[in-house]
Amino acid sequence: MNRREILGATAAIGPATLLAPTLAVANAQGNDGAVRALLEEYCAAWAASDAARMFAPATDDIHWVNVVGMHWQGKRDVERAHDVYLTTIFKGVAMTLEEVESIVPIGAEVLAVVARFDVGGYTTPGGFTAPASQDRMSLILLKTPGGLKIAHVANIEIVAAAAAHNPIDRSA
Amino acid sequence: MNRREILGATAAIGPATLLAPTLAVANAQGNDGAVRALLEEYCAAWAASDAARMFAPATDDIHWVNVVGMHWQGKRDVERAHDVYLTTIFKGVAMTLEEVESIVPIGAEVLAVVARFDVGGYTTPGGFTAPASQDRMSLILLKTPGGLKIAHVANIEIVAAAAAHNPIDRSA
Repeated sequence: MNRREILGATAAIGPATLLAPTLAVANAQGNDGAVRALLEEYCAAWAASDAARMFAPATDDIHWVNVVGMHWQGKRDVERAHDVYLTTIFKGVAMTLEEVESIVPIGAEVLAVVARFDVGGYTTPGGFTAPASQDRMSLILLKTPGGLKIAHVANIEIVAAAAAHNPIDRSA
Repeated sequence: MNRREILGATAAIGPATLLAPTLAVANAQGNDGAVRALLEEYCAAWAASDAARMFAPATDDIHWVNVVGMHWQGKRDVERAHDVYLTTIFKGVAMTLEEVESIVPIGAEVLAVVARFDVGGYTTPGGFTAPASQDRMSLILLKTPGGLKIAHVANIEIVAAAAAHNPIDRSA
């Protein structure tokens, strides 16, 4: 049992909550459409195994921290790392946008977006089969005259067993 | 073997790299001192099990996504969730800042910080012992007249087995 599993299995400190649905926090400041379009394009680039397309709307100094904690710094490295994965273990694996959970302005120029994705199971070259999962991605977007640019991403795999023990019950 | 472990064990697609040290990207734009002070205060608040102190320098609409993918929205919920954990399973557990890996401006008002923390092992009420770990935290900070405010955090547990298979070798 690793640390994530332990936290999930034993963090039931507050009242147990059953699958509190995440509230979609719609932001009506005119950002919703642009954010959704950017995320749909991200999914399309994934489906096409096209890292260059994926990071066309990225700042030059984008940083990306992936689900296992790798920290890629700068557009060149971020794109290269994704090219490696998209053309191998993730090729043909379904990845879809499940929900835009929140869009929060940070100052006048930046949006913090949290979105949930479904990632299909996949088989690695070594023959292991990874189960399907949900990832919760934080995307920090910069508003520019040319549209929204991805400036920072941190992507976290949701531990389903932990969700029921969240001390914050959003349905309350 | 879960998805994270599989990714770690089998993602050796590029040339194998041995423990490429993360480069400390010092940002000389006068932010280093303020960022480090904020992170040290975060550690001090953790050591004091004091969630109110921890989130004194937070925006009202701070969002926090934790290592198992819980998404807390707004200062009240973020502080309350931390109060639950800090006063129970994390009480007395050592947590120290290991390195400020990067400080990247996003526009004129925002900084994206990536910092690495060591978190000591802990025992849950159920009797499980979680091993010590490293977490890589993205903090999105807003510059205000009153100093830096924490606007968004995403915290990812580093899967040590995966690091050696990172397609990007920062030591190259």
